Order: sequence, then C-alpha cells, then structure tokens
Amino acid sequence: MMAYDLTLRAVLERAAKLFSKKEIITRDYSGTFRYTYSDFYKRTQRLANVLKNLGIKKGDRVATLAWNHHRHLELYLAVPVSGAVLHTLNLRLAPEQLIYIINHAADKVIFVDKDLVPLLESIQDQLPTLECVVVMSDTNEIPPSTLKNPLSYETLLTEASEYFEFPDLSEWDPAAMCYTTATTGKPKGVVYTHRALVLHSFAASLPDSLNLQESDVVMPFVPMFHANAWGLPFVCTWLGATQVFPGARPQAADVCQLIQDHKVTLAAGVPTIWMATYPLWESGEYDPSSLREIVNGGSAAPMSMIKNYQEKLSVSILHAYGMTETTPVVLVSRPKSNMGGMTAAEKYQLSARQGLLVPGLEMKVVGEDDEEIPWNGKTMGELLLRGPWIAKEYYKDPIRTQEAFSNGWLRTGDIVTVNSEGYVSVADRSKDLIKSGGEWISSLDLENTIMDHPAVLEAAVIAIPHPKWVERPLACVVLKQEYEGQVNVQDILDFLKGKTPKIWVPDRVEFIDAIPRTSVGKFYKAALRTRFTEIASTKEGSDPIVG
Amino acid sequence: MMAYDLTLRAVLERAAKLFSKKEIITRDYSGTFRYTYSDFYKRTQRLANVLKNLGIKKGDRVATLAWNHHRHLELYLAVPVSGAVLHTLNLRLAPEQLIYIINHAADKVIFVDKDLVPLLESIQDQLPTLECVVVMSDTNEIPPSTLKNPLSYETLLTEASEYFEFPDLSEWDPAAMCYTTATTGKPKGVVYTHRALVLHSFAASLPDSLNLQESDVVMPFVPMFHANAWGLPFVCTWLGATQVFPGARPQAADVCQLIQDHKVTLAAGVPTIWMATYPLWESGEYDPSSLREIVNGGSAAPMSMIKNYQEKLSVSILHAYGMTETTPVVLVSRPKSNMGGMTAAEKYQLSARQGLLVPGLEMKVVGEDDEEIPWNGKTMGELLLRGPWIAKEYYKDPIRTQEAFSNGWLRTGDIVTVNSEGYVSVADRSKDLIKSGGEWISSLDLENTIMDHPAVLEAAVIAIPHPKWVERPLACVVLKQEYEGQVNVQDILDFLKGKTPKIWVPDRVEFIDAIPRTSVGKFYKAALRTRFTEIASTKEGSDPIVG
Repeated sequence: MMAYDLTLRAVLERAAKLFSKKEIITRDYSGTFRYTYSDFYKRTQRLANVLKNLGIKKGDRVATLAWNHHRHLELYLAVPVSGAVLHTLNLRLAPEQLIYIINHAADKVIFVDKDLVPLLESIQDQLPTLECVVVMSDTNEIPPSTLKNPLSYETLLTEASEYFEFPDLSEWDPAAMCYTTATTGKPKGVVYTHRALVLHSFAASLPDSLNLQESDVVMPFVPMFHANAWGLPFVCTWLGATQVFPGARPQAADVCQLIQDHKVTLAAGVPTIWMATYPLWESGEYDPSSLREIVNGGSAAPMSMIKNYQEKLSVSILHAYGMTETTPVVLVSRPKSNMGGMTAAEKYQLSARQGLLVPGLEMKVVGEDDEEIPWNGKTMGELLLRGPWIAKEYYKDPIRTQEAFSNGWLRTGDIVTVNSEGYVSVADRSKDLIKSGGEWISSLDLENTIMDHPAVLEAAVIAIPHPKWVERPLACVVLKQEYEGQVNVQDILDFLKGKTPKIWVPDRVEFIDAIPRTSVGKFYKAALRTRFTEIASTKEGSDPIVG
Repeated sequence: MMAYDLTLRAVLERAAKLFSKKEIITRDYSGTFRYTYSDFYKRTQRLANVLKNLGIKKGDRVATLAWNHHRHLELYLAVPVSGAVLHTLNLRLAPEQLIYIINHAADKVIFVDKDLVPLLESIQDQLPTLECVVVMSDTNEIPPSTLKNPLSYETLLTEASEYFEFPDLSEWDPAAMCYTTATTGKPKGVVYTHRALVLHSFAASLPDSLNLQESDVVMPFVPMFHANAWGLPFVCTWLGATQVFPGARPQAADVCQLIQDHKVTLAAGVPTIWMATYPLWESGEYDPSSLREIVNGGSAAPMSMIKNYQEKLSVSILHAYGMTETTPVVLVSRPKSNMGGMTAAEKYQLSARQGLLVPGLEMKVVGEDDEEIPWNGKTMGELLLRGPWIAKEYYKDPIRTQEAFSNGWLRTGDIVTVNSEGYVSVADRSKDLIKSGGEWISSLDLENTIMDHPAVLEAAVIAIPHPKWVERPLACVVLKQEYEGQVNVQDILDFLKGKTPKIWVPDRVEFIDAIPRTSVGKFYKAALRTRFTEIASTKEGSDPIVG
C-alpha cells in the first residue's frame, strides 16, 4: 500500500473539488456573509501567498486571536496546509497568560479580530518574537490603535496572487497548537500533527460518533481557539458540510436566530450556552426544529437539561468528552442497540454519561495502585488514554510532560467509573475528588444532584478538612433569582435524602451569588477553595461510613 | 501526538471490550450458529495459539479456501493480529490458477472448508511450500480424503490455550493479501498493510460512505475471498455491528431467509445476486423490510434494477466502486444535499453512477495525452488513484507493477466520465472500450441501454474490426426465457433509437445463450472476443461520425 501522508491538504482540496457550490456562512460585523467553498479555496490560496510574503516558513507559528468566522476558517486551513503551525489564542485569557503563551510558542504573526485589538495593544511591547499583526474585519479599514504598523487582512488578500501550489508535507509535521488553560500554573502547549487531525476527523464523523455528513449544516459555538473547535472546521470542510459561524460576541439570541435562519442541523458548545438558549426556544420565540442534535462538551450537561431538550423541544443532546490533549473527541454517548429495554429515565442517565470510546483510541482506568479497576459502574479510577490523536507531551515543558504522561499513556486527571457496557462516567477531576473516611466522593455527581432541585441555578462542591474523616464536602449553591431567600440549607439537605449516599451529604451548604468560572467557562473551584479555606467541618452526627 | 500504530489489534480488542454481548451469526452446515463477540475473541486467542503451534511466524502467509462464516472471520482477525498474513484464496479459480497463487505467495498453511477439500486434493502435490492443511467444519470430523495428515479446526481450537497476548505490530506490517483475477495473464497479488485496512475501515463507515454503525446487522454476500469482502468483516467487528454470514453455497432463497430471520439492515454483493433475489421479494415470499440499504459493487447495477428495488420493495441500492488494488472502497454514490431538484429518473441515473470519491483518497482522470480531462459528464479518461489504501505494487511482479503504477498513481484501467458535481461514471474497462472513427464508445453504457429492453436478460458489447472506422460495436444479447424467438435484431436496434448516439448503435447483434463470466461473476469479454473474432463489420450506411 502507498506511503501516502495524511495531511490537511487533502481536506482542503476535497472541499474545493467536490463541494465547490456548498456554502460557508458567517454572522459578520456588518451582517450575514456567505460564500462558496470554491471562493473559500481561492482565498486560502491568496492567504498562503500572504503568509509567504510575510516571511512565514515551514514550522513557523502563526497565531490567531479571533472569534468563529470564515476568516478564521481560512487560517485554519491555509496556515497548516502551507506548512506553518496554526496557534489559536484563547481571547478570554488574562494578559499575562497571553504574553506567556505567545512567547512560549514564539509566534511570528498574529491575526487579530478588529474588536480584539485593544487586548493586543496592551501586551504588544512584551512580545519579542512577534514580527507583524494582521487585523481582520469585513472591510479594509484598520481601527485606530497603538499597534505598530498593523496590516489589513482584506487588503493583503486582495493584493495577493490567487495561485498557490500547496507543498507536500509529512503527516508527522505539526499543523496546529493550542494551550490548555490550566487552573494552576502556566498554560501547557499541545501540538497537533497533520496525521492526528486527519485521523480525528475520520473518528469524529462516524455514525456512532457525531454522525457528520455532507448534508449537515453545522454551527460550532465552541470557540475556534478551544481544542480546534472540537475538530469541526476540519471535518466539515472535508465532508463538504455547510458551516455557520456565529462571529464576534454571540449571545443566546444570536445563536437561536442563526440556527433558525440557516436551518442548522448540528450545533456544538458547552452547557452554559444551551442553558441560555433553552428559554428562548421553550417560549416559542425561536424555532429549533432544524436541529437533529446538539453536541455538548467541555463539561457535563445536567440530566434535567437533556430531559427538557428532548421532551419540550424534541432536540437530542449528545454528550461528548475530550480535552485539549486529545484533539479532542474521545468519548461519545449513544445507547447501543442491545440496550433497548431502558426506561426513559435510564436513557437520560446514559445520555448524561460521557459515553463510549470512539474507534481508534485505547483507554484504561486505573486505581491508586495503577491496576485496572473493574467495569462495574461504581469503582472509580483515573482515565488513561493512548492513540494516534492523543498528545505525547507538552510543548517544551519536560517537567509537566513527565507528570501527565507515563509509559505511553496520557493520564487525563479525570476520575471515572465504567459500567459493564463500557460507558464511562466522569466522577471528578482528580484534584477535585473528595476523600472522606477512605471513600471517594464525586463532587460532580453531588453537584448534578443538587442542581436537580428546582430552585437551584448551579452548584459546586469542594472538599473541606475534617479531623476524623480527613475531608468532607461543602456545597456552594446559587439559587435562581426568583427563589432567593425562599430556600434554606435544610431544604437542600432534605432534597438530597435518598438521592445520594448518606456519606455524600455535604456537611455545609453555602449560598453564593455565582460560581467563579475559568476562561473556558468551567467551574473554577480553586477560587472557591481559597474563599472557604478557613472552614473546617467539625460536624459529628451519625458516622457517615456506616450511616 | 503519539506515534501510535494503526493495527487490526485495536479492531479486534474494541469488539471484545465494548461489544462483548453483540452477536455473530452463521448459516452453518448443520443449521444456524450464533455466538457473541466475547466468545469470538476467546476463539481468536485460541486460534493464535494454533498458528503458533503450527510454526507460523511473523510475515508467514496463511491461506484460506473458504465460504463466508464465523470461522473465516476468526482467521480474518487472528492471522493478521498475531503477525502473519491472511491470504484469501478464490474458490472459483481454475486449479492451475490456484496452484500459481499458492506457490507465488508461498503459503505455509491452508484453512479449507470441508466441502472444498476435493478442490485442494487435486492440487496438493504441486504445492511445495504447503506444510499443513486444516479442515473447517462445524464438528471435529474430517471427511475422508487423500489429504496428507489433515487437521481439524475445531479439534485444534479445543486443544489450544485460551490465553494469547497479541504482539505489538507496525502499521506498515502486511496483514492480508489477495490476488486479482486478471482476465489475461497470471493473477496479480495485492498486499494490504494494517494501516491500509484500518484507514479503509474509517472511510468505508462514514455516513456518506456505507454509513455503518453498531446498530447495523450486516450480511456480506460478497465473498470473503474477494477484496476483504469489501472490508466489512473488519469494519463490523470494529464497530460492534451484528454480522450474519451466509455460509457454504448460498442460494438466493438462503439470502432472503437470512435477511428476514435476522433482520439484516445492510447486505452487500454483486448485482447477480440482487437480480436473483428480486423475484423472491417481489412475490412476497420473503420480507426484505429490515434492509435499509443494499450495497452493490463488483459491477454496475442496471438502472432498471435500482428503480424496481426502490419502487416495488422500498429498498435503496447503494452503488460503490472499488477493486482488489484499492482495499476496495473508492467511490460511493449518494446524492448531495444541493441536488434536491432532481426528478426520480435523474436520481436513478445518479444512483447508477459509481459516485463520489470517499474522504482520504485522491483521484485524477486523464486522457490519452495524460492531461486531466474536463469534468463535463462527457469526456472520457482513465481513472487514476492514490491514497493510503491504494496498492503501490503487485506482489513480486515488477513488470506488471510498472504497467499499472506510474508516478505514485494507480492506473485503474477504468475509463470514466466525471460530471460537474464530481460524480464518476465508469464507461468501460480500457481494454473493452471501442474506438470508432476517433471517438470512444462505452460498451458498458451500451449494454445498460440494451438491458433496459424488457425482453433482454443481459447483454455484452465488444469491438469488432471495421475497415473504415477501425472498430465498431457488436452486441451479444441473452433474451429472457419467455421472450426467446419473439424478438429479433431489428427490434433491438429500433429500441436503441433515440436512447443512444447514432454512432454507438451496434453494427451487429448476436443472440447467445449466456454471457460467459469470470470467477467473480464479471462478464468475461475475452471469451466473446475469441468467439466472434472472425467477424468484421463492413456495414456502410450513414457515416456514424456525422450521422
């Protein structure tokens, strides 16, 4: 068989050759922008010439600081296919984190959205490797700024030649990179090879994965700076699906409007957005009926949300699991055909799990002794992964590489259970797990149960020290506005009775205004731990182990 | 990203770990046999020990001479995953071809079905590399034969240890091989790497390809000795689909019975079988309603058949194209979502095309000057392919390797047109094409048009010499039994008026009893050419070029 390299060039060229009339649509600054894959391909060729004219060479890092739009898609393909490395910057990071990342990756050029220029202005003097900034807008205009010699994306493209012959690359060449937003320490870089991105595209598209096809109209709400927007821009281009991009600062109403206007069949994002869009659909203000599925990832969707979407809106929520280190798709939760006898409640429970391992990867789940745990749905262990789209290291970071990778496996840091059918359920991040009297308590499970209370908007559970049990859970609860002052600690504790093991019932419940979040919208529990650091549980009561 | 090898071990182990309760079903000698993937996996481990005990080492060729059944599936996985090379022998070959192939591959062991033992007996003395024969049956019994020291498959498995640790392999290691049944010259060997088979499994499963998933019940009627049964045994094992095998010498009624009994959702085979099953379904004798799709390959299905299946049985026929050299799936014919405005007739026409290139491969279509032809649906050229599951050579056959491979491309020998949407339509094998007055005439198109005549069972068109136009078409027509003697040459010619270009109308029509076929059921035109070799057309009439 031919030694044919798996590269993104084939992804780009397939769209141009077979799907020239299919469309890409953006909610742009000045309204709806749409063009065909044929136009898109010509612009990637112009963009490749722009990169060449800017002195970008094979392997050089080209950064983007941008929302989800067609220009970002052009960069997604043109940068790696011309041999450089696409480095997507998280626009929600603190300036000092951005400075660290840009310098650590040694980015030579940054392509920045016009409304994000102020963010770059504030740090530009601390970026010694940066040679040039290109401002993206829907016109040639560059907003006034203190940037040194900024260039206009649209002007550069207009002036560049439309002809570019993309080079032959090795499948092992780096194509893209992304830094994880670690809650402690500096961000860690992950480099994606062409091979990994192509193989991930295959696996993510399969019928039992995201079931992606040419006829789909796909809207990634998940940011393009977050783990390749779950690979969707590459997959959709390859398969010729219609792509809809929500543009700058999209709100829930924008998302609903785009889905309705363009008959989006598949949308992808974190639960926060689907919690926000739900009332807009439930009230009948917008029509979600074109959606065949919503892909939920980033963090787990509460079962109540999955149920509401299914029963009130007839929209399925598909749970997927992955991380920056895994390109990202690893697990997808669809029931197997031999599980037909489930009740509706059991189906929702299954949907709320992270799911089955996709073809192409290997997993094992190990206990504290590094031995594999039984698949009984109860025993917890750490999820380890290996496979062709799993990182082997952190970029130029040998110490943290050593911490996270061992014997050819990635240690995900996620504590999970696996049931007898192989469905994985994330119980906790290893650092968030609560160890009480020798037993593990899943803060995630406890949070989800508390969030099933009709008055609760959200809840986060952390460990506090206990003189006898070492650690005990403390629940931070945010009430829905209309319930403020109406619900007390005992109401919450009463609600948990019979729904959770007795030893899991929190020793303390604290009502707070909001759960602090990280730049990618996940609960930032370190901040809660700091806030409640002085609290230790001395609660006696019944022995939680035997109670 | 990890340097993780793509091997069939992951395919086998995924089934064992995630789909242990799903089933594999065979129409066995003594009735229906069924077992789970869990049982299957244990038997592959035993089989790996058997191979080891027989002295099979990494890279050794292990041959099978067998029908489609679960034992063959065990060999499909156990042989390559333990490091040897699975060589599937075509049981329809002439003895001298089998001798050539077995010796050319230097097979060490042959696993033979009990009812195929006589075929092997007749040639065993001419196989110097053969060390051992294992007879497969549903019992320990070995039928009386002249085989020297034959072993029983079931006895060997029973006696072998159930524990086997499969070795680490490179994705570039050979996993399987298959010889093409060339209509001229010796058969040519193609070696499949683990990498190619895994990547092919991804591409073949995609929603826009065969759309394979865990919930499918798949029956490969296509023989397992023919181009990996189109990859289905590997794909289905990987995805945990239920597999149904039709066993020894299946007839049309057996196929219908199996589909009905096991609620088969996807069946795959050459058009001959679907022509034979049609009346059994059309009469209501069997129920085809579980079928979501029939995959047709090997040769093109007539449009009338596709139409009948859709309109009378509500069963879709999906056209796929490939060859032994391409693992095999290359093209699949599904309409694109932007082609919605088609009439029913246009849809059937599209379905009868070979289709769109699957993700992962590259194609080009070149004329006689080796320049790419325009994609206008009319201009013909030869289809060239490259990609990770395309052969790079014929096994130990440098001369014919040089003929078929050039500059990193496989020359398929298929003459095709491509329409503006990228759909490929095979017009002819290059050697069957008729060149008349400087224009190419597609014998396949002409045959399909003739076969639309209600009295025609089948038709084959070949070239005969002509003093002015160099070549002209001659049509060999087989009438349906009930029409014999009722239809004459002029009726056929009248039928073609307006349906085909004037210059394509055959100069001669010959009624014959049957079209000779190759061992894989394709028209064997070389035999017709020999039979009609003395005929030259001297027909004058109107100038076909300007007519």
